[in-house]
Amino acid sequence: MPHPNDPKLRSFIDVSPTSDFPIQNLPYGVFSARGLAPRIGVAIGDDILDLWELEQDGRLNVEPGTFAVPSLNAFMLQGAKVWSQTRARISELLRADHPELRDNDELRKLALVPMREARLHLPIAVSGYTDFYSSKEHATNVGVMFRGKDNALQPNWLHMPIGYNGRASTVVVSGTKVKRPRGQLKSPNADSPGFGPCRRLDFELEIGVVIGQPSAMGQMLDEAQAEAMIFGFVMLNDWSARDIQQWEYVPLGPFQAKAFATSISPWVVTREALEPFRLHGPEQTPAPLPYLKQALPNNYDLELDVALRTGEMGTAQNICRTNFKYMYWSSVQQLVHHASSGCAMNVGDLLGSGTISGPEKHQRGSLLEISWNGAEPIELPGGAKRTFLEDGDQLVMRGWCQGDGYRVGFGEVEGTIVPTE
Amino acid sequence: MPHPNDPKLRSFIDVSPTSDFPIQNLPYGVFSARGLAPRIGVAIGDDILDLWELEQDGRLNVEPGTFAVPSLNAFMLQGAKVWSQTRARISELLRADHPELRDNDELRKLALVPMREARLHLPIAVSGYTDFYSSKEHATNVGVMFRGKDNALQPNWLHMPIGYNGRASTVVVSGTKVKRPRGQLKSPNADSPGFGPCRRLDFELEIGVVIGQPSAMGQMLDEAQAEAMIFGFVMLNDWSARDIQQWEYVPLGPFQAKAFATSISPWVVTREALEPFRLHGPEQTPAPLPYLKQALPNNYDLELDVALRTGEMGTAQNICRTNFKYMYWSSVQQLVHHASSGCAMNVGDLLGSGTISGPEKHQRGSLLEISWNGAEPIELPGGAKRTFLEDGDQLVMRGWCQGDGYRVGFGEVEGTIVPTE
Repeated sequence: MPHPNDPKLRSFIDVSPTSDFPIQNLPYGVFSARGLAPRIGVAIGDDILDLWELEQDGRLNVEPGTFAVPSLNAFMLQGAKVWSQTRARISELLRADHPELRDNDELRKLALVPMREARLHLPIAVSGYTDFYSSKEHATNVGVMFRGKDNALQPNWLHMPIGYNGRASTVVVSGTKVKRPRGQLKSPNADSPGFGPCRRLDFELEIGVVIGQPSAMGQMLDEAQAEAMIFGFVMLNDWSARDIQQWEYVPLGPFQAKAFATSISPWVVTREALEPFRLHGPEQTPAPLPYLKQALPNNYDLELDVALRTGEMGTAQNICRTNFKYMYWSSVQQLVHHASSGCAMNVGDLLGSGTISGPEKHQRGSLLEISWNGAEPIELPGGAKRTFLEDGDQLVMRGWCQGDGYRVGFGEVEGTIVPTE
Repeated sequence: MPHPNDPKLRSFIDVSPTSDFPIQNLPYGVFSARGLAPRIGVAIGDDILDLWELEQDGRLNVEPGTFAVPSLNAFMLQGAKVWSQTRARISELLRADHPELRDNDELRKLALVPMREARLHLPIAVSGYTDFYSSKEHATNVGVMFRGKDNALQPNWLHMPIGYNGRASTVVVSGTKVKRPRGQLKSPNADSPGFGPCRRLDFELEIGVVIGQPSAMGQMLDEAQAEAMIFGFVMLNDWSARDIQQWEYVPLGPFQAKAFATSISPWVVTREALEPFRLHGPEQTPAPLPYLKQALPNNYDLELDVALRTGEMGTAQNICRTNFKYMYWSSVQQLVHHASSGCAMNVGDLLGSGTISGPEKHQRGSLLEISWNGAEPIELPGGAKRTFLEDGDQLVMRGWCQGDGYRVGFGEVEGTIVPTE
C-alpha cells in the first residue's frame, strides 16, 4: 500500500492543486450538517468525509463511537498507532485506484458532505492552553520597542522556551466573532487607570500544537517521547489587547489582555502529514541545556499569510507573509520544557508557538510589530490606515506546506471584530 | 425548619466542639470506601455521609446520578437553588430531632462511613486554575525583599486584583506526595543557568474559590452575579519553586515554578456555610474603579494555621498563624476582574487567593517571607533549621471559622516532599 504522504497519490474526488486539502493532507475536524449532531470528519478538496458514517459502516477500526462525538480527544487518546492506521485507511478509501468507497454510491452519498453546507466546530476539547514566545525575531522586535536595542532579549530567552499559561475557556473556532474587550487602561502620563474598551487590539500569528497523549505528573520527557505525544497542528490567532497588557502584566504576565479570545483553525493537520516538510530550525547559540537538545529537524517549512479587510474594503489586503521555519524554539522543545518541572500534560492540551515573525519587515506577525507600536500605520487600499484593529475589521490567517503540485494546508482562521456593547 | 447555619442545631452523630465538621458546616467531597467507586459525600464529625446511598434511596431531590460520580461538577451545574435545598435537606437528615435517618438502622449503616476508612479524592474536575496575588502584606513583603521599601508595591497592584493563569493538570488532593521539581536555575553570579532539582522549594498558604456556575464569553459580571457563581471554598497550597521562578518569570510570569503541584483540601466548604463569618475587608485606597466596587462584606473571618514537621521531628511545629480576613481584594472582586475582558468562566474553575499573609511577622504565609528570602532561618525543636523545604518535610495547613461552641473548618491540606528521582 502506498504511504499516505506519497506525492503521487490521487483521490477519486477532484482536488485543485491550490486546495489545502489534497489526499496527502487528511486533516481532522468536527462538523455538523444535514441537521445532525456534530461529529468528526476529514477535509478532502471541497468536501468533508464523515468518519462517523464510515465507522458505523464498519470501515474504520477504532473504539466504538470514536467519531460520533464533538471533539477529537477520544480519538487522540487511542494513541499514535491508531492515528497512523486510521489515516492510512482513510487514504486508501479516498484513493482514485481503490473502488471500495469510489464505487459504493450509497455510502459515498452518506459519507461525503460539501464543506460549504457544513458548520465547522472547535475540533478539540481544550484541556489547557499554553502560549509560548519562541520567535527570536518577534521577541527582539518587542524588546527593541520597549527596552531598546541593547537589552532587546531578556537574559533567559536564549536558554529556554519562555511561555505562560493561557486561558482555555475562550479558545474558539475560526469564524467566531471577537468582541472588543474591556479592561483597565492607563496611559503613561495619567495618574490612574480607567476602565473601558481596548484601544490597541491586535492579532498574533501562531501555530498551535495539539497534544494527543498524556504524560504523568512528575515525569520528564525526552525529544522522542515529546514528539510522539504531538497529534497535530492548528493555525492560531492569539488576540491581544496591548493596552490592557501593558498595564497589567508586571509581575505575573498577561492575564485579561489575552483571556477574551483565541481563535484556531477548524482543521487539525496531523504531524504525519507534515513529515515531508520537516527541516532544521535556526542554529541555537548558546547550545541548549542537555534536556532541551534535539537530534531531529523539528521545524517545518510552513508558509504563513495574514490578510486584513476593513468593513469598507471589498477584498482583503495581505499584511504579513512569513514562515513557521523561522521559529527559534521548536514545538518539541516547548513540550519538553513544559513537562520539565513534572507538569502533567493532558490529551487536548494546546500549545501556541508564540507570534511567528521572520527576519524581514513584511514577515512581522502582529500589528504591534507591523505598525511599530503605532508609529508606522499601515496604508490600505482606499486610503484607510491602521495601527491596531478597528471594529468591523476582518482578519484572515492561512498556512500551508507547498509540495510538488499540491499543498498541505490548514484552511483559514478568520475573525471579525465587533464592538463592545 | 431551622436554617442549616443555626448555631443551636445538633446532629444525632456525636461531633466534638473542636471538629471541623459539625452540622453547621456540611462540606462536600469525593471519597471511596468499602471497595466501591468514588462518589460524593458530606463530612459530619468523624464520618462521611454517602450522598449516593441517600440519592438511591430517594432521599435527595437532584438530577439522577448526581452523587454517583467522582467530582462535584455535575452537582454544581444544577445551580444555587439546588445547592441550598440540598444542604438544607442534608441538615434535616442529620439533625438530632429528625428521626428519618437517625432511626433507620439499615440506611444509616449504608450511608455513614467512618472517615478513617475512606480514601479522599480531588473533589472537583478543575476546569481552569487561576492564581491571584491579593494580600497586600504578601505583595509588600515580596516587593521589599526584591525591590526595596520605596517600590514595594507595583503601580498596578492597588488598582486591580493581579493574577495569572496557573496549571490545572497538577491540582491534587491533600495527601498527595510532592516530588521536588527540576528546572533551570541560575544564581545571580553565574554566567549561564544549569538544570537540576529546585533548591528553594516553598509553600503558599491560600484559600481557593470553587466556581459553580458558568458565565458566557463576552459577559461582564457585577458583584451579585459573581457572588452567586461561587459554590464554595477550599484550602490551597500553591507549591512554588522560588529559584526556578526567579530565572523564568520575566516577562510572562511564573510557569514551571508553579506547574508541578498545587494541593487542595478534600472538602469544599460551601459559601452558605461561611455566611455567619462574613466581614468587611481592609479599606481600599484608592477607591476601586466602579466595576470593582463592592457593597457587601465579602471577606471572611477564617483562621489559618501552617505547621511543619521534618522527617526527624515527632510532632509538627506551627510556623504561621494568620486569617483570611486580611485579604485586600476579595474573592468576589477577583471573579469580577477575571471576567472583565469577556473571559468565560466555567464550572470547576478554581481561583487561588494568593498567599495570605497578615500584618504581623508570625502571619507570613510562605517560607520566602518567614525566612526573609533565606536570611532568617526558622529554628525547629530538636535543632533543625529551615529556610526552604527539604526532602521529607511535611507541611500541614488548616483553616476554620470559629463559631460559639463549634467551628466550620476545612480539615487539612497535607503534603510531604519527596526527592527528585
